[in-house]
Amino acid sequence: MGENRENYIDEIVQKILSDYDGDKNIDAFNIYNKPDKDEVRDILFKLIRIVYPGYFKERAYKIYNLKNSLAVTIEDIYYHLHRQIELALETGKNKTALNDEEKKNKSDEICNVFFERLPAIREIIETDLLATFDGDPAAGSFEEIILAYPGLMAITVYRLAHELYKLNVPIIPRLMTEYAHSETGIDIHPGATIGKYFFIDHGTGIVVGETSIIGKNVKIYQGVTIGALSTRGGQKLSGKKRHPTIEDNVTIYAGASILGGETVIGENSVIGGNTFITSSVPANTRVSMKNPEMEYRTYENKVKKEEITQSEEWYYII
Amino acid sequence: MGENRENYIDEIVQKILSDYDGDKNIDAFNIYNKPDKDEVRDILFKLIRIVYPGYFKERAYKIYNLKNSLAVTIEDIYYHLHRQIELALETGKNKTALNDEEKKNKSDEICNVFFERLPAIREIIETDLLATFDGDPAAGSFEEIILAYPGLMAITVYRLAHELYKLNVPIIPRLMTEYAHSETGIDIHPGATIGKYFFIDHGTGIVVGETSIIGKNVKIYQGVTIGALSTRGGQKLSGKKRHPTIEDNVTIYAGASILGGETVIGENSVIGGNTFITSSVPANTRVSMKNPEMEYRTYENKVKKEEITQSEEWYYII
Amino acid sequence: MGENRENYIDEIVQKILSDYDGDKNIDAFNIYNKPDKDEVRDILFKLIRIVYPGYFKERAYKIYNLKNSLAVTIEDIYYHLHRQIELALETGKNKTALNDEEKKNKSDEICNVFFERLPAIREIIETDLLATFDGDPAAGSFEEIILAYPGLMAITVYRLAHELYKLNVPIIPRLMTEYAHSETGIDIHPGATIGKYFFIDHGTGIVVGETSIIGKNVKIYQGVTIGALSTRGGQKLSGKKRHPTIEDNVTIYAGASILGGETVIGENSVIGGNTFITSSVPANTRVSMKNPEMEYRTYENKVKKEEITQSEEWYYII
Repeated sequence: MGENRENYIDEIVQKILSDYDGDKNIDAFNIYNKPDKDEVRDILFKLIRIVYPGYFKERAYKIYNLKNSLAVTIEDIYYHLHRQIELALETGKNKTALNDEEKKNKSDEICNVFFERLPAIREIIETDLLATFDGDPAAGSFEEIILAYPGLMAITVYRLAHELYKLNVPIIPRLMTEYAHSETGIDIHPGATIGKYFFIDHGTGIVVGETSIIGKNVKIYQGVTIGALSTRGGQKLSGKKRHPTIEDNVTIYAGASILGGETVIGENSVIGGNTFITSSVPANTRVSMKNPEMEYRTYENKVKKEEITQSEEWYYII
Repeated sequence: MGENRENYIDEIVQKILSDYDGDKNIDAFNIYNKPDKDEVRDILFKLIRIVYPGYFKERAYKIYNLKNSLAVTIEDIYYHLHRQIELALETGKNKTALNDEEKKNKSDEICNVFFERLPAIREIIETDLLATFDGDPAAGSFEEIILAYPGLMAITVYRLAHELYKLNVPIIPRLMTEYAHSETGIDIHPGATIGKYFFIDHGTGIVVGETSIIGKNVKIYQGVTIGALSTRGGQKLSGKKRHPTIEDNVTIYAGASILGGETVIGENSVIGGNTFITSSVPANTRVSMKNPEMEYRTYENKVKKEEITQSEEWYYII
Repeated sequence: MGENRENYIDEIVQKILSDYDGDKNIDAFNIYNKPDKDEVRDILFKLIRIVYPGYFKERAYKIYNLKNSLAVTIEDIYYHLHRQIELALETGKNKTALNDEEKKNKSDEICNVFFERLPAIREIIETDLLATFDGDPAAGSFEEIILAYPGLMAITVYRLAHELYKLNVPIIPRLMTEYAHSETGIDIHPGATIGKYFFIDHGTGIVVGETSIIGKNVKIYQGVTIGALSTRGGQKLSGKKRHPTIEDNVTIYAGASILGGETVIGENSVIGGNTFITSSVPANTRVSMKNPEMEYRTYENKVKKEEITQSEEWYYII
């Protein structure tokens, strides 16, 4: 193509540049800097290393150098998190106009509170680990759970993000939980309130909405939705309690949907698989689908034989 | 192990090499070059940066250097996409034997059309962004959606891949949408036809089949399948319309399955959660499960107490 | 902040260090080295390259240098896998105290058996590829399936991990299948037993439990659970058969749940979408939900109009 291609690319660039002048919401190049997805992910990785010391690097930590290594990592997290929070404070529908000094101070304040809460966050994550080991007969060891289980990882990320959410940091908490969502298929909004000893098994397809309130010692399985009844109201519903309350010691089996801001699942109840619940359930109750009637039809042997022949014939064709 | 290990590895290598001579379909080393998964992913990343200028790098873009930076990125995409398309043209069940010159020209042609469509693709993605903000009360800002929402990301990748699919590029469109599937749990086949203002919430577990036709202003939630009734016919069904048509302004709530190539969901209809639909639904209709009967059983307090004791006792044992 | 920040970080470091002294299970820094998640992922990538020679690098392999390249890769895998197995042998609830020499010998033994099984593993993966092509009308070529289909990738990883599981390697098999789970949303426990010609379509949300037994020529779709009836017994159930048996030629459509260690699905049966099955099904049977009653309500035109106005009005507001 040679010169042609150069001309062609020049044309395309002109077209796209003039398209950028159209003031779309998807264009941000000439406005201001945004929080950076990759930076937030790196911060999260380092925080996870602080939460689980010794698990995410094969290295002979010794007490006498751990202090230095820890100090370096924390300073590193502090610096980058501080910067991302400053950038995040410039976004959002409720943003207030802060000058640079004010943003810096606000970010200082948030970082300080966040880091001071780390020991308390670690304490609750320890209970989640214990609940996971207790709940899963296939768990071979604590190490296996920490290194391999998506449920505990999603909960860990949620617990970190939730603290930043409570400090009114925009965007960053959601970037963190969406990273976990992407890795695990578990979608816990950082705004949800969740008690200790929380256990998630398998996890893919779980959704926990922003205004959910979940007690302690709750177990949930893959495909469970703790969601809103309808969001047809869109942005008008922003800030309202749209998601259920789940009390202590509740178990919710795979595929159950529990919906609505006024729905309360009373303590010690067990919600069966694939149930669809839009009103409250009293304490100490088991809920299951009533007679999920199934239809059984037997194949005529002949019909079946043909089908099998069909489904296998191509092995001989290719 | 020392020398032993060397001998051992030599043996293993011999065994595997002779296994490679068996002419399996999983062996490609001595045939020809294949499209490269990592290359296609990199191309996709760069395309996303073109679609959302300023969002995916923290950098103070200035108008006077944007043109150069853009030109470099586009030339880079062009070069790599061109090469991957040439390789892809050598694959597939409908492949035609093209010589090198013909492949080069075909790839030129495809690239030129694709790049010229980028502004139109961006225009429709802007409508998807607006629909997402409108649909989700938890959305804090456009920035949050662009940076963090898996639904918009899956739609963006689909919209790019669909253009290549329409230009009959093999493999590459599917590599793109499967990258999005892997990141988001949302599986949209690049062959599907989807109108503007498309909104996906949460998204994990969504499947949209190859021959689906979806109108404008449609909203779908996690776990929705827009699929085929049965694919027992296998390759014989290739090319037939096997997936439903969803008309304008339809909302489909979580876990609904809509199946079959002749199934049409009429405009403005609302399909309730967990429904299972295999025939057409008229316009302006709400569909929900009729009396999903649930069974409630209360625990005897005593029984429950024992259970709780059991489930917590191990905390004291370990 | 300057000096203040330094003091502050020093304080935080002190707090977290003293928190590390509390002997939590989430702390491992002063105990011993753990298997490394990233190392295991790299080993897996290289194994996949051995399984599918020529697919995962764009490179003109020539027979005369393939041998060397293969030898280097295998030696590399051997070295790293050997090390990770040694580390894994130090974990787990059934761990036995081995000295360094014994761990080395045990790891030698495991690696040797594993590598010798690679040709047999490749043979069965070839059948999975054929079953995938046969089962999906949208599949354009073997290349498309190998490069893009999550189902085949999850099965491939499972087949590799299962061999290590059978050799009683702790943690590593699960790290491998959880990597696949993270990439594909398909959660197959490495302990499951699965026959040849296995086909998974779409796949997101599939769960196959540790003690499942699946015959040959079985097809499963997205959202299928082959799981335990209840795991309230927790660790007491460890080692028991808790998951179903699926016989040859069975098809299980999307969203079906098949639960319980004594549940057997007889050969040639077809399990319909969204069914919930907790007892055995005889051979040659089709199972579907009986009359899943749906309720249809028509909108008053006026009501609908208002709704549409509401849902679109914000486009004019922002």
